Amino acid sequence: MRLSCHTTTGPQVVNSIQDYRNIRSAWAREDRAVGFVPTMGALHEGHITLVREAKSRCDRVVVSIFVNPAQFAPTEDLDKYPRTMESDLALLDKEGVDVVFYPPVKEMYPSGITLDVQQQVGTFVEVKGKSHQMEGSVRPHFFRGVATVVSKLFNIVQPTRAFFGQKDGQQCSVIRSMVRDLFFPLELVIVPTVREADGLAMSSRNRYLSAEERAAAPVLFKALSAGEKYLRVRGPSTTAKEIIDVATETVKLEPRVQLEYFSLANPYTLEELQGPIGDDGAIFSGAVKVGKTRIIDNILLQTNVKTWATRD
Amino acid sequence: MRLSCHTTTGPQVVNSIQDYRNIRSAWAREDRAVGFVPTMGALHEGHITLVREAKSRCDRVVVSIFVNPAQFAPTEDLDKYPRTMESDLALLDKEGVDVVFYPPVKEMYPSGITLDVQQQVGTFVEVKGKSHQMEGSVRPHFFRGVATVVSKLFNIVQPTRAFFGQKDGQQCSVIRSMVRDLFFPLELVIVPTVREADGLAMSSRNRYLSAEERAAAPVLFKALSAGEKYLRVRGPSTTAKEIIDVATETVKLEPRVQLEYFSLANPYTLEELQGPIGDDGAIFSGAVKVGKTRIIDNILLQTNVKTWATRD
Repeated sequence: MRLSCHTTTGPQVVNSIQDYRNIRSAWAREDRAVGFVPTMGALHEGHITLVREAKSRCDRVVVSIFVNPAQFAPTEDLDKYPRTMESDLALLDKEGVDVVFYPPVKEMYPSGITLDVQQQVGTFVEVKGKSHQMEGSVRPHFFRGVATVVSKLFNIVQPTRAFFGQKDGQQCSVIRSMVRDLFFPLELVIVPTVREADGLAMSSRNRYLSAEERAAAPVLFKALSAGEKYLRVRGPSTTAKEIIDVATETVKLEPRVQLEYFSLANPYTLEELQGPIGDDGAIFSGAVKVGKTRIIDNILLQTNVKTWATRD
Repeated sequence: MRLSCHTTTGPQVVNSIQDYRNIRSAWAREDRAVGFVPTMGALHEGHITLVREAKSRCDRVVVSIFVNPAQFAPTEDLDKYPRTMESDLALLDKEGVDVVFYPPVKEMYPSGITLDVQQQVGTFVEVKGKSHQMEGSVRPHFFRGVATVVSKLFNIVQPTRAFFGQKDGQQCSVIRSMVRDLFFPLELVIVPTVREADGLAMSSRNRYLSAEERAAAPVLFKALSAGEKYLRVRGPSTTAKEIIDVATETVKLEPRVQLEYFSLANPYTLEELQGPIGDDGAIFSGAVKVGKTRIIDNILLQTNVKTWATRD
């Protein structure tokens, strides 16, 4: 006689908010800790690391898969953003996820959502002071879209803990401000970036890269690391400009990659640093274009992700 | 031997969010329905009606008293807004309220809040399409301040039902959109306006009125009622302009009162009506100045508060 190792029927896929609320009410009565990993699907090892962290710290795990129109500009890749629901579900099944919340757009935006910001009506959440610089300077309404959809998802899922990846560093900072300022009753957990063997940060958009572009893409992380090494060697008087110059030189060595920006900022306020790095440490971020694909990455300098994620 | 009729020790006054969270967790374990009445204090019969409605429909009742700086402009009456904590507590004690949440400003805005909107940092909630007209045209950042503080309070108090007075009609509409768009897990209840014998809507700001001003103030409700009567007599072809003209003529008869605006709007979208009133009915709102005091009021035409508050 052969026994199957897996008796699971897979995660429950829930499309409607009301259906999820019924599940959540039952968990509330049982006093379950609920872990939540919001995603746009096209899952990779970075997402799975978040799921495992959630599994290890919570009784129940919910993963949402929702490609949020409000965080795409009309010129961006909303339509071609990778959708790989079948393989996503298979991955989440293996991890023992309890619920996959997979709503249609009209469930999340009952009054509709237009990508033209001037035409939008309805409720939006904005984190002033952290949304205009870095990624926000290139994608001006991006963080308003992110903060709004994450607010919706928090109110629907009602997690005990929510898990975000450090790779989207400014997003982590914006969400952290939002959770604090609006007093969302949950704990925010930030999980270090998962990288390929050559240092490239895992990202759903890496799928867009041709073989040649893929070979060039790790230069962003190399550049950030070169800046970090320069700081370590030169010591605490090193200025932000010097560190950024070193990183910029590194990117210039790779002709297939075009630099968008480097930023050295206070990790708590996201204010750009001018001189040396202070007691708060820094978040060192960059964005490049490899062909038509944007790639972002960041590392923390003289602080660690746990301090960054939890310090008041 | 004499027995006291009241063995209550009065409502528990809670100043810190963490203390409240502990109480709320216990209620969650007991599966209690929690009713919430947010106020700025200076309580009157209108507030008490909200509290009684909450008492009748919930196991526990929380009243917040917080004069929210973010909804006052630098030129407005933040400093002189009436604060009457002792008599407020006595009233709430009589009604059997369980918790009075009475936080200091720095508990609600840990990073501070400046009245100069250009200088503000942190998270703000805005309901686009419903915040710029009517009261929003006179007080441009008012509803952003309201939506933001109500979001904070909802996330702190975690009510099952929240109770708002119809008198602040546009506020009800803004909060209703916010609850729907962001999926706050609660039921919004709107309670009809409570009026003095002469029709004046109860309001904390009525305290500002001198005896002479108080005698003139009911003209706003008289004007709204005159418009309503005109519509009833003239029938469904009556236009918004005709109704507003009738109300305006009524206000003009009272020289101590200065009209700010009348508005006839769709009660669901708050779009101004031009021609006759359609199937959705209308919200007929006005604001006047009596001396230095602003007075607002509204009535619903061809719909009722229950339909307005609950129709999808």
